[in-house]
Amino acid sequence: MANFELMRELTKAEGGKIILLVMDGLGGLPHPQTGRTELETANTPNMDRLAREGSAGLSIPVARGIAPGSGPAHLALFGYDPVQYNVGRGVLSAFGVGLTVGEHDVAARGNFATTDANGIITDRRAGRIATEEAAKRLELLKTIKIPGVEIDLVSEADYRFVLVMRGANLSAHISDTDPQVTGKHPLKAEATAPEAQHTADLLNQWIGEAQRVLKGQEPANNVLMRGFAADPKLPKFKDVYKLNPACVAVYPMYKGVSQLVGMEVIQTNAHDSTQDEFDKVAQVWPQHDFVFCHIKYTDSRGEDGDFDAKVKVIEGVDAALPTLLDLNPSVLIITGDHSTPATYKAHTWHPVPTLLYAPGTAMPANVTEFGERACLQGALGQFYAVDLMPLALAHARRLEKFGA
Amino acid sequence: MANFELMRELTKAEGGKIILLVMDGLGGLPHPQTGRTELETANTPNMDRLAREGSAGLSIPVARGIAPGSGPAHLALFGYDPVQYNVGRGVLSAFGVGLTVGEHDVAARGNFATTDANGIITDRRAGRIATEEAAKRLELLKTIKIPGVEIDLVSEADYRFVLVMRGANLSAHISDTDPQVTGKHPLKAEATAPEAQHTADLLNQWIGEAQRVLKGQEPANNVLMRGFAADPKLPKFKDVYKLNPACVAVYPMYKGVSQLVGMEVIQTNAHDSTQDEFDKVAQVWPQHDFVFCHIKYTDSRGEDGDFDAKVKVIEGVDAALPTLLDLNPSVLIITGDHSTPATYKAHTWHPVPTLLYAPGTAMPANVTEFGERACLQGALGQFYAVDLMPLALAHARRLEKFGA
Repeated sequence: MANFELMRELTKAEGGKIILLVMDGLGGLPHPQTGRTELETANTPNMDRLAREGSAGLSIPVARGIAPGSGPAHLALFGYDPVQYNVGRGVLSAFGVGLTVGEHDVAARGNFATTDANGIITDRRAGRIATEEAAKRLELLKTIKIPGVEIDLVSEADYRFVLVMRGANLSAHISDTDPQVTGKHPLKAEATAPEAQHTADLLNQWIGEAQRVLKGQEPANNVLMRGFAADPKLPKFKDVYKLNPACVAVYPMYKGVSQLVGMEVIQTNAHDSTQDEFDKVAQVWPQHDFVFCHIKYTDSRGEDGDFDAKVKVIEGVDAALPTLLDLNPSVLIITGDHSTPATYKAHTWHPVPTLLYAPGTAMPANVTEFGERACLQGALGQFYAVDLMPLALAHARRLEKFGA
Repeated sequence: MANFELMRELTKAEGGKIILLVMDGLGGLPHPQTGRTELETANTPNMDRLAREGSAGLSIPVARGIAPGSGPAHLALFGYDPVQYNVGRGVLSAFGVGLTVGEHDVAARGNFATTDANGIITDRRAGRIATEEAAKRLELLKTIKIPGVEIDLVSEADYRFVLVMRGANLSAHISDTDPQVTGKHPLKAEATAPEAQHTADLLNQWIGEAQRVLKGQEPANNVLMRGFAADPKLPKFKDVYKLNPACVAVYPMYKGVSQLVGMEVIQTNAHDSTQDEFDKVAQVWPQHDFVFCHIKYTDSRGEDGDFDAKVKVIEGVDAALPTLLDLNPSVLIITGDHSTPATYKAHTWHPVPTLLYAPGTAMPANVTEFGERACLQGALGQFYAVDLMPLALAHARRLEKFGA
């Protein structure tokens, strides 16, 4: 439900401390030979014990049948209905490449494209130009100066890049310049609300300059912009949950989403191992009552279709768990943001195995190990991801009784 | 949830093909002697295998504790929240007797009633006059001509009939003429919206003529009209799901509801067997990516209270299943629209056993046979019927990821 009014009313500033450990893309499907999923295959004595002694269940990320991206999937785990709190594509892309989006900024996704002598689009993706080639053109774009605004540009893979415009009185109510088909001129950026006219003017000025500096740089001699978005100004953890939260994550996307909900983002290094991340959780533990810790590689190996490697990542997390258990959290939740079965090589809609370990407050039930099929028998049943935060707060004794 | 905005955004025009097989009133309650339900008693080797290899669960037709009629129960299976998308009683009754309701038509339910010399109602049901006697009076009503409109009349059982008025500028915003008590005059049909005045005038004219031709036909010497309704103009499968759907059903009610959501209704005969229906599914399979197939007699035998006969119908469906399996659908769903336990002899609210067979995308779990109690252990858990279509589309790989 994501009923923040109720949360604001019921949450207490005191209570137990919570660790939310998210293994990205944790859920899987059975291996055709063994009939067991990645998590069921992995040797996970620690998680098995926690699932037995705590409560287990399966989390439905957004809605039945919906496979979410990482942005909405994490918002749901944080208690924000991702259909209601829709974070724009430009902002999520900016997070993905490590750009911040402040409250006065506007972010957008860009494609390099090919236009002919008449300015007609002949290829919306500039022949899927290689990342290094795109990076050279991006250097040209970085030379453009538009008075009154600062513009950050970072490459995504291949022909794609991200733009963040920072300045005064900007608005993201801007239409895409990508007409989505070849054979047409790029569209003008247009204000879809009166307050965005100034931003549209600045963007069209920038696009004009971009076309000038890219002249002769075929196949990437033009740009198409889309997904204009601003800081969605989400309610913050401090306000809705009375928590002082921290984020330990390696990938920029997860840091970005955590920042949107008001978490302190802890400094990490790109090649931090699970153990490194858990050590950082331990370091910041005294200063926070909620720590979100994100493990990326379960999802990466699932996307690769590498079943055995995903099993190994899970086993590594299990082996490092004593570092978190030594902190004696009142509540330790282990879950995923969605499923990424190695047999499917992509995000899916399948409910995600979840355990909630909370000595003295969690109901243990019927579960002997941590796995998809085992969790079906658990005390949490199948629940929507947005309900996880109320459950976490309740088990940490941080919620008042509702009504007399 | 039935979020058509999300469905419109995420559905793809390509992907796997889907069969939705609905055994009306499938769910049951235990036989007092054996403790097993109709489905648990039936010998169903094919469904048992599909439940084992696919995902199983239980569908809640509308809401906990709500026993639905066939109209709303099917709308829910098709993904339309039946509380939000309320199809008027007149329209459902028209479908039930095989009348179509086009976009300019208004349908209503009628009772024959008895009024005394002063026009006061003495019996709202005309002594529950027999169907054949009512049919004779209906022939008298069919002689009435009202300029500018065409009027179709068909008998339902006993004292009831259905009226469909076809013409220009008609509106269903008309109040009932049935005061719901004896001792009063029938009410005038009144327009409850200004645009319905013309329709109200035509109806009052028709009712006046009806009273004239029924004079002396006691006990059926008057009519009471209620449930005025028009085409609810539901969003169509093509638009919300990008599917090209067909309906194979024998009973008019199911054809009518399917037509409302934009299915092509396939020609069937009143006495088609399950095998005949499955053969028709096979015939139209190349032209459609979604086929709804409806089996009526599970419900009929449940309503009769004939436990053994309902078991036999289920076994007959199981025996014919290879015809559907030979089509290699990407997704085959077997469910019911509601429960009709033979021990209860009526529709109930009990969640309905459901299996979703989808090689490569369905999660098998803990289920050894297709039955109410077995399905409780299944991967789908208990879910709302409106969530079935998103699940079907997901398993057929017809949904894009939600967000980045």
